[in-house]
Amino acid sequence: MKIVKIGVIGIGNMGSSYVEMLDKGQIKGAMLTAVCSSNEGRIAWVETHTQGDVKIFKDEETFFNESGVDAVIIATPHYSHPELAKKAFAKGKHVIIEKPAGVYTKNVLEMNAAAKSSGKVFSIMYNQRANPLYQKVRDLVQSGQVGDLKRTNLIYTAPYRPQSYYDSSKWRATWEGEGGGVLINQAVHQLDILQWTTGVMPKSIRASSSLGKYHDIEVEDDVTAFIEYENGATGVFIASTGEAPGTHRFEIVGDRGKIVVEDEKLVFHQLAQSEREFNATYTGGFGMPESQKIEIPVVSENDNHKIIIQNWVEAILKDSPLLSPGEEGVNALEISNAIYLSSWLNESVHLPVDANLYYEKLQEKINTSTFQKKHVTNTTLDVKGTH
Amino acid sequence: MKIVKIGVIGIGNMGSSYVEMLDKGQIKGAMLTAVCSSNEGRIAWVETHTQGDVKIFKDEETFFNESGVDAVIIATPHYSHPELAKKAFAKGKHVIIEKPAGVYTKNVLEMNAAAKSSGKVFSIMYNQRANPLYQKVRDLVQSGQVGDLKRTNLIYTAPYRPQSYYDSSKWRATWEGEGGGVLINQAVHQLDILQWTTGVMPKSIRASSSLGKYHDIEVEDDVTAFIEYENGATGVFIASTGEAPGTHRFEIVGDRGKIVVEDEKLVFHQLAQSEREFNATYTGGFGMPESQKIEIPVVSENDNHKIIIQNWVEAILKDSPLLSPGEEGVNALEISNAIYLSSWLNESVHLPVDANLYYEKLQEKINTSTFQKKHVTNTTLDVKGTH
Repeated sequence: MKIVKIGVIGIGNMGSSYVEMLDKGQIKGAMLTAVCSSNEGRIAWVETHTQGDVKIFKDEETFFNESGVDAVIIATPHYSHPELAKKAFAKGKHVIIEKPAGVYTKNVLEMNAAAKSSGKVFSIMYNQRANPLYQKVRDLVQSGQVGDLKRTNLIYTAPYRPQSYYDSSKWRATWEGEGGGVLINQAVHQLDILQWTTGVMPKSIRASSSLGKYHDIEVEDDVTAFIEYENGATGVFIASTGEAPGTHRFEIVGDRGKIVVEDEKLVFHQLAQSEREFNATYTGGFGMPESQKIEIPVVSENDNHKIIIQNWVEAILKDSPLLSPGEEGVNALEISNAIYLSSWLNESVHLPVDANLYYEKLQEKINTSTFQKKHVTNTTLDVKGTH
Repeated sequence: MKIVKIGVIGIGNMGSSYVEMLDKGQIKGAMLTAVCSSNEGRIAWVETHTQGDVKIFKDEETFFNESGVDAVIIATPHYSHPELAKKAFAKGKHVIIEKPAGVYTKNVLEMNAAAKSSGKVFSIMYNQRANPLYQKVRDLVQSGQVGDLKRTNLIYTAPYRPQSYYDSSKWRATWEGEGGGVLINQAVHQLDILQWTTGVMPKSIRASSSLGKYHDIEVEDDVTAFIEYENGATGVFIASTGEAPGTHRFEIVGDRGKIVVEDEKLVFHQLAQSEREFNATYTGGFGMPESQKIEIPVVSENDNHKIIIQNWVEAILKDSPLLSPGEEGVNALEISNAIYLSSWLNESVHLPVDANLYYEKLQEKINTSTFQKKHVTNTTLDVKGTH
């Protein structure tokens, strides 16, 4: 295979951007040959916005059977990612899915098993893994320069959303349509970055989430979670779409240093010796280990989506390693599911969550929902500059 | 009265600094005329380090009855503050106490009642209230420029302490001697600032505290607390003495702006309109209210202790208002007691805490303690540059 023939399923905010990216030839070694959408308006948009020979399919079965694509980008609403990915693997297609991996781990684990047995290349759009900023953070932690983990602190109130965002589609911010709010949608990248940079998953989570606190929605738009790690380290994760201007700050503390990322700037405080050694040997009462503050310049460009797609295409063509393996999509979802479950049960939840219990509780939310959206505008939003 | 005759009770780290401050004439309208301590070594220190005519008392009864002082500075270990203050008020003395107000609210409330009925001037060493930085923060909130409170976030891991600090005195960091760790000692200023700047007390607290996590002590040296306010706002408070270099960052978010104080720098993000109004009226999907980032220069000098003492002396001489009324000392203690109680009970605790329940639980800690300090150095530490 010299050129990967790609089909895009789902032409919403993100799918449209992938259609343009591929049609404009921005991905080397790949071409857009098909799209699949049941939305007439979006099909018309594809017809007027693409130059290449793009076949249009209105149902998934025909798309998978007749499109002849090698690989599919799944950019449909969250719930459908695992089912569509499983279908794609069954047809021998390579797959990249939009985030989140799904809404509950039960079928995401099935998707991972299907990916494995298919042998196809499977990636997930955790575009922040392409960000040099977080790659550097991960390097610092994984190389041992931060030392043993003591504390993580991630405040992500930056993704402000006004009511009109939630009113743009019927499925948005409903238990049935999206399966959650800020956690499942905006903050899922940060949950991935939290576990990917540190290399550890939380042991348990105790969380509080507020439903429709700042918006007329039935899901959470404000969350605070307390995290405990296996080694005794603790963490706090805060996410909200109701604050302006919000904060985006990530702190990782170890016994050999501290990382602070705020407003895309990376600062590393490097200790001259382990704080644990200093503590045991220093006799002066007041005092602390010497440290130097290192501002690490990192250039972040806003083409991380493109990098992830390109990386996936290269893995298909050359068997090169993936930046964002699809199987790892379950990690952020585990954390997000644990935060929900803890809020719903009002107790600490151990990870991995009970996949069946989570699924049942989510079905309860869906089945007992009485929420009606008052004003749906059915707008496709331009995602430029957002994650 | 033209000159306030002052006696200092307790010549430890803080008491020694007040003795020097007064003896060197750094407080206008006041003079040091007596000290009270039962520690021979500290008495010898006073004799060699003071120039003025300073009477020395070894027991409190004689000190209160015979010293002839108008006012007392109480700088003894925490537990004794309420009892000594009550004795001082009974003898008609003006009082300033070191922080914390006490260890449990039961007797602190009694102290407040005694202060009120005495009619004497009562202050507490919340020296950070003299810091122009926090005065400005308070002004911004109290003047309505931040708007309705949404979230507070206070990370105070700056007060690093090595084991040798805890080994400097037998009473330090024990339930019996100090009644707690980082909360009751190092972080009490921040708890005061949290409620004083925002003007609101938490409604409830859910907390986790780790005992002797980073040090060989029986009390907590690492705490994370989740706060809920009456209006639905939430907050997180983190304190630790086990991180180097630590963080000192305070964020206050309202519907009209956001304050961030970090490393003694104050930034105010001021919105052009209320986020609540923007949310209700904006139709663009993605977008947020306009804001401007204002860096507010504030000069913080390290003479806040002196300012508080001077302010108290002026209140005695001229009936001028107190920056830090003693009766308000109970507020930070309420928050700290709630954090302990929540950790001990492993549940949410409403404020004000049940004063009797807290007292009983603390007695349990003291009575069941089996901890023995391995290495006590009996060192008086120089507190310059600390709070």
